[in-house]
Amino acid sequence: MSAASQARRLRGPGELEIVAFERGHFTSFSACGIPYWVGGDVPERDRLIARSPEEHRARGIDLRMRTEVVEIDVEGARVRARDVESGAESWTAYDKLVIATGARPVRPDLPGVDSPGVHGVQTLDDGQALLDTLEATQGRRAVVVGAGYIGVEMAEALINRGYEVTVVNRGKEPMSTLDPDMGRLVHKAMAGMGITMVDDAEVTGFRTGDDGRVRAVATEDAEYPADVVVLGIGVRPETTLAEAAGLPLGERGGLLTDLAMRVRGQDDIWAGGDCVEVLDLVSGRERHIPLGTHANKHGQIIGANVGGGYATFPGVVGTAVSKVCDLEIARTGLREKDADRAGLQYVTVTIESTSRAGYYPGAAPMTVKMLAERRTGRLLGVQIVGREGAGKRVDIAAVALTAGLTVEQMTTLDLGYAPPFSPVWDPILVAARKAVAAVRSADS
Amino acid sequence: MSAASQARRLRGPGELEIVAFERGHFTSFSACGIPYWVGGDVPERDRLIARSPEEHRARGIDLRMRTEVVEIDVEGARVRARDVESGAESWTAYDKLVIATGARPVRPDLPGVDSPGVHGVQTLDDGQALLDTLEATQGRRAVVVGAGYIGVEMAEALINRGYEVTVVNRGKEPMSTLDPDMGRLVHKAMAGMGITMVDDAEVTGFRTGDDGRVRAVATEDAEYPADVVVLGIGVRPETTLAEAAGLPLGERGGLLTDLAMRVRGQDDIWAGGDCVEVLDLVSGRERHIPLGTHANKHGQIIGANVGGGYATFPGVVGTAVSKVCDLEIARTGLREKDADRAGLQYVTVTIESTSRAGYYPGAAPMTVKMLAERRTGRLLGVQIVGREGAGKRVDIAAVALTAGLTVEQMTTLDLGYAPPFSPVWDPILVAARKAVAAVRSADS
Repeated sequence: MSAASQARRLRGPGELEIVAFERGHFTSFSACGIPYWVGGDVPERDRLIARSPEEHRARGIDLRMRTEVVEIDVEGARVRARDVESGAESWTAYDKLVIATGARPVRPDLPGVDSPGVHGVQTLDDGQALLDTLEATQGRRAVVVGAGYIGVEMAEALINRGYEVTVVNRGKEPMSTLDPDMGRLVHKAMAGMGITMVDDAEVTGFRTGDDGRVRAVATEDAEYPADVVVLGIGVRPETTLAEAAGLPLGERGGLLTDLAMRVRGQDDIWAGGDCVEVLDLVSGRERHIPLGTHANKHGQIIGANVGGGYATFPGVVGTAVSKVCDLEIARTGLREKDADRAGLQYVTVTIESTSRAGYYPGAAPMTVKMLAERRTGRLLGVQIVGREGAGKRVDIAAVALTAGLTVEQMTTLDLGYAPPFSPVWDPILVAARKAVAAVRSADS
Repeated sequence: MSAASQARRLRGPGELEIVAFERGHFTSFSACGIPYWVGGDVPERDRLIARSPEEHRARGIDLRMRTEVVEIDVEGARVRARDVESGAESWTAYDKLVIATGARPVRPDLPGVDSPGVHGVQTLDDGQALLDTLEATQGRRAVVVGAGYIGVEMAEALINRGYEVTVVNRGKEPMSTLDPDMGRLVHKAMAGMGITMVDDAEVTGFRTGDDGRVRAVATEDAEYPADVVVLGIGVRPETTLAEAAGLPLGERGGLLTDLAMRVRGQDDIWAGGDCVEVLDLVSGRERHIPLGTHANKHGQIIGANVGGGYATFPGVVGTAVSKVCDLEIARTGLREKDADRAGLQYVTVTIESTSRAGYYPGAAPMTVKMLAERRTGRLLGVQIVGREGAGKRVDIAAVALTAGLTVEQMTTLDLGYAPPFSPVWDPILVAARKAVAAVRSADS
């Protein structure tokens, strides 16, 4: 809908007819907000909806809700759509096609995964179903499967709802988007909040009671009693249609586009959002990063191009930020294993600092890990685990990565300083200074 | 002391003798922290002291406290120092000299300025004197003269102490480091906190009572009753010694150095901190920016160079951040008048956004003003006025300025996004998008 809206801004209804198909019940909602709605921070579902179908239609977009596209006929330049309720199908021709099919949550094919009480949290309907379960359930034991962003955010949500929370995670540490040493800090902090953290554990099934409802999550070694289970295992690009149409997919199953977000090899088909792979500007490789902020940018760019303008999406540096209660977790750029895979040699440094001047009230500890390339000293990545004021500091590194700065250049960055905001050396500068020394000694 | 410490790290006492002269009672203290000590956020003075004279001496620095250098003999490569207590003088020869004389507060030559109850806040002694006055004073009316960083921070401190605060300010709006339209927002917010804001008012003198203590601050138009007065008018480089020694000063009275912080035209003299002018990387001109974070960097760089290493200070982009209660104020780069003075043509845009996703609790409004160069679209400056979470966002712009990014490049920056941290489009991105449109329409 972002692409449709942007195209409409550039071309009025007399110049460009826009038809949009949506198989679900909602448009333009914030999936990222679902954990906060479930947790009670957001009081009602409709707060997460940026624009209703009626609002889109009022702007001259022919939006067909509960209508699923089931085939793309590239050669014939048309799509076949099915009315979800009636099953009726029809073909619609296009001059230009935008594919924004998003991602689908990973749902492991395990015994009991479809039992009542086991919930995903991708759509607003998922969120409502989970809230209904929470309301109907007497017990207070919740198990979250997965310890990535969705997993840790759902752990917070369930704590806020008064649950005893267990997080069961396949990785050695939670937050596999961090290096394990930084993930360890997240483990400790979450355990310190009273969350039971089970790492290195493969779920083998979901035990159910006589009523068919979920009662426990089983791993190879143990069973974790559960009155409710939330799956936060991640998502994959939803590219079934695109694949069937013969469109090019990358290693992670996402559509491949050029810099204008046009599907490679196609003149009239664009793709964006969670169904595409994007260029990682640091490693030079494609990645799949399902994030609303990228999807929104893609929509703007596609809409500009479809509307006769010009815009490109240069790529990402892999920035992400999350929180669990007062714990803030952020990363950008490459982890050690990403750098290894990209053929880069690097140094790593880790420093402890505080969010504010040490003498200022509320100065909270923060750990910053920094990766820099050997010899060149180019910044490769930053990971932060801390408390209030830690997370958004990653933006400093995100811009530095985009600009290709070295850690030496970073040591003199003119960052905002006052005691309530930062120590006299911002934690990012402290890390950069240490990284300079590490780069130097690595080649001496 | 930062320079001395860094040089000592590189060269032991057997290799390099380090003598340091300090006329005051303290070393290595955070002047920026004084408002928070006065306001009660920092419970005791010694929290502001990073390192005592004894600690410096333990590291092999011959630190001579209460000893004022009164002459630099450049040709003879020696300094004349006076013991403040005894008045005894002696010459000390140097191979290398570092000038770090700091800045002196502007103290207007007005009737009554030296009366008891009128306070500056530059040194720890100043802070203690002010606290003593606050303790001894029954009345609860405070007048702050000046509405720059020190002025607004002292307004907060005095509010925290329970005073009725009036801020008298010569400019049309407070915070002249912002454009007046953004300063207006600060005026409104401070007035909304119950602070009496008097703009466009030249102080003509300080009225005293029969006991000689200050009773009111007089301007051309009015008198403002005061039980205590704080001067926050700004500072000037303390370069009397340097000027007498014939060293080169800039338009603002600060020492001029090369990129290694060596005084121009001198082989063996360095200078840093509040007594130097620094290169503004955006305008290409020298500026005087008295800020602890720059002074600390200068010290590191000078210490490295004096210690036989190599480091440079490329310049600043003019980042500053401050707060008054929950109001956050930040700026980086050029104001409109700076850009005019630099011969740059530019567009400006101002946007309203929020610190977090609009549906997330605590999402606070934020105004961002952005300047971009005509035609090139290069970012020239950003100003932010908002609440919690607003101030440090200026760092994104500070790095972008350092890297010379255009506002178009900024629209695709990969900044940290999650509902508790940012709207799906960070306010800086919203401003950048609007600036792109403004740049385009300015030349169409």
